[in-house]
This record gives sequence, C-alpha cells and structure tokens, in this order.
Amino acid sequence: MDTAAIAKAFTAMLKAGQHIEAAERFNAPDIVSLEAMPGDMAICRGTAAVKAKSDWWYANHEIHSAESDGPLINGDQFLMRFSLDVTPKMTGQRMQMEEFGLYTVRDGRIVEERFFYPTA
Amino acid sequence: MDTAAIAKAFTAMLKAGQHIEAAERFNAPDIVSLEAMPGDMAICRGTAAVKAKSDWWYANHEIHSAESDGPLINGDQFLMRFSLDVTPKMTGQRMQMEEFGLYTVRDGRIVEERFFYPTA
Repeated sequence: MDTAAIAKAFTAMLKAGQHIEAAERFNAPDIVSLEAMPGDMAICRGTAAVKAKSDWWYANHEIHSAESDGPLINGDQFLMRFSLDVTPKMTGQRMQMEEFGLYTVRDGRIVEERFFYPTA
Repeated sequence: MDTAAIAKAFTAMLKAGQHIEAAERFNAPDIVSLEAMPGDMAICRGTAAVKAKSDWWYANHEIHSAESDGPLINGDQFLMRFSLDVTPKMTGQRMQMEEFGLYTVRDGRIVEERFFYPTA
C-alpha cells in the first residue's frame, strides 16, 4: 500500500470511530508520537507508549462530538483535521477545539504522528 | 530565534502581504519545497527555484482574497492555513480553496515547505 492508500484506509477507520483498530493496523512498532507541549507526553516512542497516551486521553475526556476531515496527501505524509467538542474531566469545562494530525508513512506503516493545535 | 519566534515573524509578514520579503528573510539557501502534484514543480530545491515557482503562481492567479491562519507549532515545524479566493488565468474559473503549509525550521531558517490541499 502506498501513502495515499494507507491514508485513505486509516482515515476511513478513524471516521468510523475505530481509532484503536486503526492504530493497531497501521502504527509501526517504532512509531514516534509528538505533542506540542512540554512534559511526559511530549514524545512517546513505540506502540505501547502511544496506546497508553491515547487510552489516557479517551479516559480523561468526555467526547460530545468528533469529526475527522482529510486526508490531504503530499509524498510520504498526510494531514488530517479533527474538530472536537469535548469536556476534559480535569477542568469540567466543555470546549470546542480544532487539531491537525500529520502522519508520516514508511514501508506501509505510520512511523510518526505529530499534532498541531494552539499553544500558549 | 527558535521555531516559535521564526513562525510568528514569518506569518506576521505573510499576513501583511510580504510574501517575497518573508521568503528572502527566512528561506534557507537549500530550502526544499514540495507540492502535492506530479510534474516539474513537485520538488523545487534552493531559493532561486522556490522564488521562480512563487513568481509563476502569483503571475498566473488573480487573487480576490487571501487569508493566513496560524502558526500552529510543534517542535521544529509549524503549520499554517491559507484560505484563498482566486481565479487561475489558465481556467478563468474563480475558486475558493483551502491549503495548508507545513514549514520545517533548522538553524533559524526554513529548510522545507510542504503544501497540502485536495488532490485527485
């Protein structure tokens, strides 16, 4: 599968709510996940660490709605937009946010995911 | 200047319409520019080739409006969104389009720009 085929299959699974299955199928064993924030979760390496971060996020946010747009593809990378309406359990304050995911593909797997959203 | 400072200065210049000056100030001599299309302009290397592509684009599009949003920063990269209302001179058909620019910074300069937009 080339980048476009992987991007389309991956995003179809996300749009169907199958984020766990999409990660299991497409994340490379040595995937690197980069958040735009300091702290423990800024860089996660490997499927187990990335799954732990994802599990934490889903456990700590109440999701009212989530939409995924894309993919937009260029070379070995594709970009997706996520529109989220969530209440973080830490704050209890419902918020609407837009986030972009940039995915890098190598040998049929996602080797890097990098997220973009407003930061301080 | 770190990535955030460069991203902010660069985007402020774009928002002020100073795209030529922004490129002159921030593009690295060996910048690589990647379009999501086949053909001669898919990869441009170096400031002269990148400027020639930019000059071609501005010469061949009538711009009714252009908005730049961002930057969203993560590590050595930043993402911008461009909302364009243009008429390509080749087609004469006015169109509204959204495009994303992903910029990679090294040693205070932009070493890669990669554009994302809908493709066939």
